[in-house]
Amino acid sequence: MTVIRQVAPPAGAPKKDDFEAVTLPIPERDDNQLLVENLYLSVDPYMRELMEWGGWELAGGLLGDAIGRVLESSDPTVPVGSIVRHRHGWRTHALPAVTEVTRIHPADGVPLSAYLGILGLTGFTAYVGLVKIAALRPGDDLFISAAAGAVGGATAQIARLLGARRIVGSAGSAAKIAYLTEKLGLDAAFDYHAGSVTEQLAEAAPDGIDVYFDNVGGDHLEAAIAAMKDHGRIAACGAVAQYNNLRTPPAAPHNLFDIVEKNLRLEGYLADRHLNSIPEFERFLVPRVQDGTVLIDEVVVDGIENTVDAFIGMLRGENIGKMLVRVAE
Amino acid sequence: MTVIRQVAPPAGAPKKDDFEAVTLPIPERDDNQLLVENLYLSVDPYMRELMEWGGWELAGGLLGDAIGRVLESSDPTVPVGSIVRHRHGWRTHALPAVTEVTRIHPADGVPLSAYLGILGLTGFTAYVGLVKIAALRPGDDLFISAAAGAVGGATAQIARLLGARRIVGSAGSAAKIAYLTEKLGLDAAFDYHAGSVTEQLAEAAPDGIDVYFDNVGGDHLEAAIAAMKDHGRIAACGAVAQYNNLRTPPAAPHNLFDIVEKNLRLEGYLADRHLNSIPEFERFLVPRVQDGTVLIDEVVVDGIENTVDAFIGMLRGENIGKMLVRVAE
Repeated sequence: MTVIRQVAPPAGAPKKDDFEAVTLPIPERDDNQLLVENLYLSVDPYMRELMEWGGWELAGGLLGDAIGRVLESSDPTVPVGSIVRHRHGWRTHALPAVTEVTRIHPADGVPLSAYLGILGLTGFTAYVGLVKIAALRPGDDLFISAAAGAVGGATAQIARLLGARRIVGSAGSAAKIAYLTEKLGLDAAFDYHAGSVTEQLAEAAPDGIDVYFDNVGGDHLEAAIAAMKDHGRIAACGAVAQYNNLRTPPAAPHNLFDIVEKNLRLEGYLADRHLNSIPEFERFLVPRVQDGTVLIDEVVVDGIENTVDAFIGMLRGENIGKMLVRVAE
Repeated sequence: MTVIRQVAPPAGAPKKDDFEAVTLPIPERDDNQLLVENLYLSVDPYMRELMEWGGWELAGGLLGDAIGRVLESSDPTVPVGSIVRHRHGWRTHALPAVTEVTRIHPADGVPLSAYLGILGLTGFTAYVGLVKIAALRPGDDLFISAAAGAVGGATAQIARLLGARRIVGSAGSAAKIAYLTEKLGLDAAFDYHAGSVTEQLAEAAPDGIDVYFDNVGGDHLEAAIAAMKDHGRIAACGAVAQYNNLRTPPAAPHNLFDIVEKNLRLEGYLADRHLNSIPEFERFLVPRVQDGTVLIDEVVVDGIENTVDAFIGMLRGENIGKMLVRVAE
């Protein structure tokens, strides 16, 4: 089997040389493990952070969401041929424990890859942030940073289903702005390279915002606090702006204490602390993926050998929507 | 009547010359107004902020919580002789509208002044922050900054009633540290001048904290984020550290984005947005003031002419507990 390993903690932006692909024999399987042939791997921003702090063992196989087919099993509830989702990614074969996998029964008309994207941790992160953290209400005005990324795009689509009024997004290129306004139907979008985020947000959301879905931190958070209406809520899901600079993070927003005057709430969260909400999430979203209301936006790269390039490109913001690697048919 | 007016917005820390006391005739009373002789005036940190941003009219009478006796009334529900709480402070006489006053019926054994302190907006701010914002639960470990101030001391006492486990406070002098540990019964307290707040808090709360009641901002907030357990909550009630430097606020904490990894909530609030909770607050706290479980800690300065000194001293942290001005018997 092929395994992508981390050679050293990246200094700043990860480079190809920080990783290596090695061929290893498939280890012996214990009775409580499954042998899984991975079909799709997910590459996500949070992985950059794990690399910094040693959350991933150097020279061990890297972790990440994956979907695969069971080749060997001693458990009748997950027989050979089952499709499972697990977190032993960045490799062609994995041996997760039975307790570490979730069986996937793809709904009619829904491609398997969607269960790593809009119906996977990506969409679930958006759902938890909007519903559980920010408590988005119908009629709320919303701002999403990094809106053309996987989580950002899912957030925009789910927020529309939840009845958000005006949805504004930021992104880093003209192509992404066009994607947001033309394909995802955002009411306004702006390029954060084009000028002050605070000024552009004020123009795009002249009535202010009720909810900010923060994928970025830094100047975007400062702009959002400035634009917030009284009793606004901020769901802080990540800080892409600082993933490559974790040891000396940028200063936080200078207007942080406006949260007092404005009665604002800023709440950070990890979606994997809310896994008991997955059934309600799937009941809510699967039918809307089936009927085409919600788009599946993904970029699929073929071949395990391209995983590192896919990851580096995703961190650079080269993709629109969810970035996946197809390892096998 | 004597009225304290603001002459100019303070540059940095307010000085005595920024204010003047003038003698004016008592204005004509409308039928919907009461003529009130003020008995006690409150001086509070938030007033500094109002002075900066023009929330108070220059050369107009200043605002602030006050308790007074009704001298003239056309409303039978608030007859002459009633005791009322209102917000036309910093003057010997006031003409609030009937709708702007709350009638006070002091409970047996409770001094009138307590209704500006532990039973007034001060205690209510502590209660709202703990109960409505931070959702303090029995067994939670708590850190309070500026704990020897009026709101801080009320927070410590109310948190104990609510079942907090370990309560740690910071303050700015040895006398205040002694007051916190010996009189208010905090489990630990430290002087923030004595070294790194982060290190002192880590030592005082080695198991971490569940709730941080933030009266300060700045380095205290950074220290609290570092000490927080997973799913911790921060109630941000004010930022005394920056009240004298509002136009160029200090940088916010560098570890702000640890709120994501730790699933933390940071929520700002103004207690006056929660006034419908005053009845539950009084049901909860009045009996504990009556039976002596909760101390009334106040510094009372006599004479309207000393209001500015009391205010400036309070901002400098010279008082322990609530700072009040007695205007009349």
